[in-house]
Amino acid sequence: MKALIPLACLLAGFAPLSSQGVIDAAPPEAWRPLLPENTLYMDVGESTVVFELAPALAPNTVRNIRTLVREGFFDGLSINRVQDNYVVQWGDPDAEDPAKMRKQGVPATLAPEFGIPAAGTAFTPIPGPDGFGEPGFVNGFAATRKDGAVWATHCYGALGVGRAEDADSGNGSELYVVIGHAPRHLDRNVTIAGRVISGTETLSSLKRGTGTLGFYETAAERVPITRIRLGSDVPVDQRLPIEIMRTDSASFRDYVDARAHRTRDGWFLHEAGFIDICNVRVPQRARARP
Amino acid sequence: MKALIPLACLLAGFAPLSSQGVIDAAPPEAWRPLLPENTLYMDVGESTVVFELAPALAPNTVRNIRTLVREGFFDGLSINRVQDNYVVQWGDPDAEDPAKMRKQGVPATLAPEFGIPAAGTAFTPIPGPDGFGEPGFVNGFAATRKDGAVWATHCYGALGVGRAEDADSGNGSELYVVIGHAPRHLDRNVTIAGRVISGTETLSSLKRGTGTLGFYETAAERVPITRIRLGSDVPVDQRLPIEIMRTDSASFRDYVDARAHRTRDGWFLHEAGFIDICNVRVPQRARARP
Repeated sequence: MKALIPLACLLAGFAPLSSQGVIDAAPPEAWRPLLPENTLYMDVGESTVVFELAPALAPNTVRNIRTLVREGFFDGLSINRVQDNYVVQWGDPDAEDPAKMRKQGVPATLAPEFGIPAAGTAFTPIPGPDGFGEPGFVNGFAATRKDGAVWATHCYGALGVGRAEDADSGNGSELYVVIGHAPRHLDRNVTIAGRVISGTETLSSLKRGTGTLGFYETAAERVPITRIRLGSDVPVDQRLPIEIMRTDSASFRDYVDARAHRTRDGWFLHEAGFIDICNVRVPQRARARP
Repeated sequence: MKALIPLACLLAGFAPLSSQGVIDAAPPEAWRPLLPENTLYMDVGESTVVFELAPALAPNTVRNIRTLVREGFFDGLSINRVQDNYVVQWGDPDAEDPAKMRKQGVPATLAPEFGIPAAGTAFTPIPGPDGFGEPGFVNGFAATRKDGAVWATHCYGALGVGRAEDADSGNGSELYVVIGHAPRHLDRNVTIAGRVISGTETLSSLKRGTGTLGFYETAAERVPITRIRLGSDVPVDQRLPIEIMRTDSASFRDYVDARAHRTRDGWFLHEAGFIDICNVRVPQRARARP
């Protein structure tokens, strides 16, 4: 099956652009800022991992995480689990021991946000097929739509909320990041609260834990988290100076198309004509500091 | 759509098994040995990464790799590239410099093995849809079938053959392993020669390179490879004592079904009813040493 060339290109007489060409040609209105109130800065060793939160997909969970971050809940805690091709997880290693657990300024339970109604959700589909539902994006976040619901998708770098057996046991105090092939069997089973914007490699290159599920077997192996800050609390000149391509823009649509047709990029000899949603990395670009 | 319960289960009055239940119940004929002549042992620091080669999918490339390994080509070379969510790559860092490159006992070029004819290939499909073609397995290796061809699929842990611009420039002397979300845009663009059987975490947890494409910027950062041996050259009592589930067995079919229906495993509250081919990890089990 031949790829369809976008009508605008045919009319203008242009060959389809490569993915970098699309990014370079994207107009100012195709970009959006990274809002400080939706950004987390996690300091681990000498590195900082930056996350974007997803209030559109998990409003109550994001509110809890903001509260926990602002009260310093995560500061001095640790990464306790690194499971290869799966997740890096952090929180209070004593969370299961009422006598030793750190106080949390949010209730212990929270109604799960495993999906939101599709009606009223600004969902931008991308071409399928996809075995889990209709693939697309909600304001920068990979998502799936099916059966009247939209849920955030467990792609590489997704920020998820650990829970125990009960659906409401994930209150935002235990978090993880996907560091492997998208574990989409977790979709609709846990709340996704955001995604990594910068610094995934700090997490994905950590030593794997040798205990069950990749937990570190000794306290000495745990990786200290110096602190997590909300972007609004980070001095303006220390914030990550980037902007993100709007996933509801024509530029993004063209970018996805270009990534499905990689021979436009050189080196490639064959193009699949298709891209898996979890291989669509939403473009970012530097912007001048304000 | 409701999942279909395998007929054998209905007849026997059994509920469908969990994935572990399928593994535990698999009869002896559902397992195959790991053949020494198709196994590589790569020593990196204190760790050993074990690979299974795929002569059924890339016979000439596997022959080249066996030759290079047996002549000690890789011994003392290094891992030179670690790109997050993509690949770990090793070989001769001086390969581009005719004056310094290490001698290779195989020709510099090799006709690409980007796919094989579907006719005559023992391909076991698994349920789709899949945007790249028909998903399935060829004797333990994730593969895709389309347009009369079958090709090995770039799942996590796939062992690929680096090449330059020309299709025939990958002769097996430069190898990589996938350490991120399946980069299936590479399918049919490079030859896949095998997959990791044990020890992926040794590679996936390496420090990421900060140069272009994740190459290490200094020679000091490169990670030495002590040696690579063919399984046939490893003393019998030092070989990895495992066997692998046959992907053309009924047990494997039931395993894939169980992994698509995770509520059978507990903890899960929702099951997708589908599994992405690159999340199907072919079961292995310990066997007594001979």
